[in-house]
Amino acid sequence: MRKGYMIVCDGSNGAGKTTVIKAIDAHLVSRGHATVVTREPGGTVIGEKIREVVLCPDTPELCATAELMLFAAARAQHVREKIIPAMASGKIVISDRFDAATVSFQHYARGLPLDLINLLNDIALNGFKPDINIILDLDPAIGIARVNSRGERLDRMEREKLEFLQKARNGYLAQADRDPKRFAVIDASQPLEDVISDAIKVVDHIVAG
Amino acid sequence: MRKGYMIVCDGSNGAGKTTVIKAIDAHLVSRGHATVVTREPGGTVIGEKIREVVLCPDTPELCATAELMLFAAARAQHVREKIIPAMASGKIVISDRFDAATVSFQHYARGLPLDLINLLNDIALNGFKPDINIILDLDPAIGIARVNSRGERLDRMEREKLEFLQKARNGYLAQADRDPKRFAVIDASQPLEDVISDAIKVVDHIVAG
Repeated sequence: MRKGYMIVCDGSNGAGKTTVIKAIDAHLVSRGHATVVTREPGGTVIGEKIREVVLCPDTPELCATAELMLFAAARAQHVREKIIPAMASGKIVISDRFDAATVSFQHYARGLPLDLINLLNDIALNGFKPDINIILDLDPAIGIARVNSRGERLDRMEREKLEFLQKARNGYLAQADRDPKRFAVIDASQPLEDVISDAIKVVDHIVAG
Repeated sequence: MRKGYMIVCDGSNGAGKTTVIKAIDAHLVSRGHATVVTREPGGTVIGEKIREVVLCPDTPELCATAELMLFAAARAQHVREKIIPAMASGKIVISDRFDAATVSFQHYARGLPLDLINLLNDIALNGFKPDINIILDLDPAIGIARVNSRGERLDRMEREKLEFLQKARNGYLAQADRDPKRFAVIDASQPLEDVISDAIKVVDHIVAG
């Protein structure tokens, strides 16, 4: 039935997701795989529009319930329009963030009930699950310092207090503890080449397996 | 506890909602009430941004699940940021569309399960309900001809086939049949002054009661 794979690269802001995803992609392409690199929220025209709304730093009044629904809407579109068709044609999808980010940020950090998060994720995913969630784990104080050093305008989530980002980090670790088959935690405080090397080992295990 | 009221004006596109809402508002203001006129999707800065995404005619690929979640996100924000505070200060909120539109368009017309619609509406509304839904009932063939004669670019919903709009109309009537206390159906094929007069009678009954 299914042909492709889906690899999620997730974790703290500033943990190196973008660089690691580029390295995973180059590695898979060099092995002859067709890949699709994507991100959440986003990945489709509609998803990118939703991203602008949900991450916009000018609307701090966005309530937690609407925020959750916006992430779920972008995910529903992403899965149906882009991910499922790519996997059906044998491609390997590599996504910057996915469902586990909503559990970490909206439940563990924001405090919405886990049942509500799971419900919205289930509706958005419609039975679909990624093969592996690689979590780049980093102290958010270090991560946000790295984000700040880029000189770009911080988005709504990056402007959250350190305590909020710390709760999100713990949320990733809690999810990984509960489901070690679907999560691989990598220490992102290591030198970047070691982070990349660890991530590629995880990917080779999944794609070869 | 609660002080204000919420009146929803809903029904087919082109049935005269905007004009009727203006008349209801002028009537209530002339009786000394403080009012807030609003709309869905929209009514807040975030809601209006979501409106642009969900009604944009350039993205027909928007899937039914994401569409539903976008309407629900806008509603969640609308209720918490604008409607509840306005009612708490004794105002009468008059909204162009609300929860019943999602039941009509996304369940009766689009075919999503009613349970799913109710679930998303319940999460968005968090126990809140409008006092009355005035349904301006009109054959959508007539309504869309009126919308077309305005010369504006049609939105994504207005571009739906007549059969879809007919199903949505029947959805309003079915909801009104099931819950006659919360719905008042007005024949919008009457001369406009009669439509307005009927609507004001409904409003006076609610606000006086």
